[in-house]
Amino acid sequence: MTKMTQLEVARAGRISPEMSAVATAEGIDPETLRQDIAAGRTVIPANPAHRSLRPVGIGRGLRIKVNANIGLSGAVTASAEGEASKLDVALAAGADAVMDLSTGSSEAMASARRAVIARSSVPVGTVPIYQAAVQAQERGGAVVGMTAEEMFRAVEEHAADGVDFVTVHCGVNQAALEALRASRRLTGVVSRGGAFTVAWMLHHGEDNPFYSGFDRLLDIARRHDVTLSLGDGMRPGCIADATDAAQVAELVTLGQLVERARDAGVQVMVEGPGHIPLHQVQANVTLAKALCHGAPFYVLGPLVTDSAAGHDHVAAAIGGALAGWAGADFLCYVTPAEHLGLPDAAHVHEGVVAARIAAHAADLARRLPSAWQRDRAMSLARREMDWQGQIAQAIDGRRACELRQRLNPATAGGSGGDERKPCSMCGDLCAIEIAKRAMGGGCL
Amino acid sequence: MTKMTQLEVARAGRISPEMSAVATAEGIDPETLRQDIAAGRTVIPANPAHRSLRPVGIGRGLRIKVNANIGLSGAVTASAEGEASKLDVALAAGADAVMDLSTGSSEAMASARRAVIARSSVPVGTVPIYQAAVQAQERGGAVVGMTAEEMFRAVEEHAADGVDFVTVHCGVNQAALEALRASRRLTGVVSRGGAFTVAWMLHHGEDNPFYSGFDRLLDIARRHDVTLSLGDGMRPGCIADATDAAQVAELVTLGQLVERARDAGVQVMVEGPGHIPLHQVQANVTLAKALCHGAPFYVLGPLVTDSAAGHDHVAAAIGGALAGWAGADFLCYVTPAEHLGLPDAAHVHEGVVAARIAAHAADLARRLPSAWQRDRAMSLARREMDWQGQIAQAIDGRRACELRQRLNPATAGGSGGDERKPCSMCGDLCAIEIAKRAMGGGCL
Repeated sequence: MTKMTQLEVARAGRISPEMSAVATAEGIDPETLRQDIAAGRTVIPANPAHRSLRPVGIGRGLRIKVNANIGLSGAVTASAEGEASKLDVALAAGADAVMDLSTGSSEAMASARRAVIARSSVPVGTVPIYQAAVQAQERGGAVVGMTAEEMFRAVEEHAADGVDFVTVHCGVNQAALEALRASRRLTGVVSRGGAFTVAWMLHHGEDNPFYSGFDRLLDIARRHDVTLSLGDGMRPGCIADATDAAQVAELVTLGQLVERARDAGVQVMVEGPGHIPLHQVQANVTLAKALCHGAPFYVLGPLVTDSAAGHDHVAAAIGGALAGWAGADFLCYVTPAEHLGLPDAAHVHEGVVAARIAAHAADLARRLPSAWQRDRAMSLARREMDWQGQIAQAIDGRRACELRQRLNPATAGGSGGDERKPCSMCGDLCAIEIAKRAMGGGCL
Repeated sequence: MTKMTQLEVARAGRISPEMSAVATAEGIDPETLRQDIAAGRTVIPANPAHRSLRPVGIGRGLRIKVNANIGLSGAVTASAEGEASKLDVALAAGADAVMDLSTGSSEAMASARRAVIARSSVPVGTVPIYQAAVQAQERGGAVVGMTAEEMFRAVEEHAADGVDFVTVHCGVNQAALEALRASRRLTGVVSRGGAFTVAWMLHHGEDNPFYSGFDRLLDIARRHDVTLSLGDGMRPGCIADATDAAQVAELVTLGQLVERARDAGVQVMVEGPGHIPLHQVQANVTLAKALCHGAPFYVLGPLVTDSAAGHDHVAAAIGGALAGWAGADFLCYVTPAEHLGLPDAAHVHEGVVAARIAAHAADLARRLPSAWQRDRAMSLARREMDWQGQIAQAIDGRRACELRQRLNPATAGGSGGDERKPCSMCGDLCAIEIAKRAMGGGCL
């Protein structure tokens, strides 16, 4: 007999070991978590075949999670070791999940994927259609040469390997394509999976196999308890295209598919944009949550401007914080290399940290108790010039420690700069110290 | 006869050369600008003694501006050349204004200030009370040994030197002090000028000279057309202290002083926090704009978490974007070194760019036409794989160019990587290219 999915277990009124672990990690009541999973408002992407996994929950009432995309690119000669080190960097920086987006040869992709799953303690996601596209290329053809069979087989293979969640662009159907055709988009389709699917549909004159054959996808997902992440193939690629008909038409479909997935006992979340101006972020999250029946919402950024090339992690942190505050549950990082090239390990670090800052800022705005506790502990350490305490509370403690040491030659000794003295910004004109002396600790 | 201030000229119905220059730079109607200046909703900090200045407007309907703090620290042995290079870095990164916050010896401070004014094409701000505090220290005493006379003389001296705007913590009065005493703040007073003033008031048992002698300050400011930036000495130093009684009590006073400044023909803006959680940012801006009669609002960050040490420019970009969208006109940058030490030149660059991204994102949300034009041009270049066009539109074009070259070894030749090929993220699996081919350019 097949193992039940987390959704099925929750519906049966039972608390799985994964739910217990998540409840403990989040400091919440397991029964509340179970109810949210049963209702589809929370998912635990935990493929039983992913042995090294420490389960992570994504959804209502939980800490907002951060995903880092890593993986080989067919355009760059890279070593498997180089990519493994990006995984380590992402985990060390505090990523809650990673997606292996490798392309290249199907052989290199398979070994990269399996290495990431074996090495990763956090949920691993993939986009199986990349494999089908590459297989078509390897036969000497174009991406559109992939068969529907190859698409489903790629999902099955990833699931058997232990992938915890897969992005599937099921909402790119004839309705979305019609909306796209009628639109006056500036940048067309910028989702890789979305572009492959559109090209395939136009070439074959058929609907998207992941849409027309959604039940087959559900069967694979249910058997392996792979969480479906319904991709936004029509996500806007620039501010001017944000919140347009193609994007919203696809989202309408995704909302319908969410209900079908839940009916089948399959865990499901929904992906969102992309490029969205500041004033449309909240509306996008509200719309996605409403149309998709409260399913966990996974946003890529969103980037609040197109013009931050080289610093897109900052543009994404702005959008991610707002989206998280508005209800998004899962932030996909964006690195400084976005729109320019494949990120290096340092970019991965910057991307994860910026997304974690956004997630934490949103957790504060959502009144998450653990977030307030962290900032309070940080501020107490700051008041007391307790540098080790500040480093311990910092989202990127290693960076804080490194800067503290480098920028305080006069006060920071070889001891790591942990003397309780003001920093080099103000020295003996430190506001906190002067006010403390003046007020006699009265207000402090 | 003394020259009129920009406010007086505007009220007299005339358009000054500075107003013309600002209107041209912003692409707006000079008469609209004049009306906003006359009403005090916009300022042009332009001290006639600052010869190298290209005037900048701050306020309603204008592009949101970014300030970079630079300056010597008494705690670090630095060269005047090192600080001059930080000015150059700030200007190259696109800062719209700089504040020289030097401390150290009063002699070093004076020469640093004069060098910055001579070299800067953008408005220069200072905090004159630092000079009075340092003079007291140089007499062998404590900061509180400064005299009221020294405080005013410092303002006069800075004004005569050509400083365009000065931060004066006039709202730190007995009422604010009472509110501070009654508060249960975690981090007390974190504004240097605020702390000096509180310490002085408690030591002397007198009210803040900049409050009780506000008319003298107005006289100096009017004679030199120095814009007063009413400092927030009671700004919260942590998320837990945000939007508390001390902060709001001071803001109430600042609103009253705004009206007195305007009555005296003095240009005035108001400074705001600080550390503010995401969900309180809009309320803070709305409150400041309402209490201060629409005066230009100048925010430091705000930081939306306390825990981003080493990456506070990201936390500030999130807060700054939200604040700008809500109506803030002027963002003071925060660098990655904030809370840890005096920033170096690279930190200055990162800080300015992050703040400019925030300002631009807010400009988009405020529907500023020039902001939408930039993002549109960027997106067109992106669609066409026009790398030189993207670099030209990027907020930090130099960084974009550097990353483009470094991350694209296969495609980016010695020519600067300007071939019209996809980047190393996707290579021949580029979504934009595949969709363009599939759609036959139909929707693109």
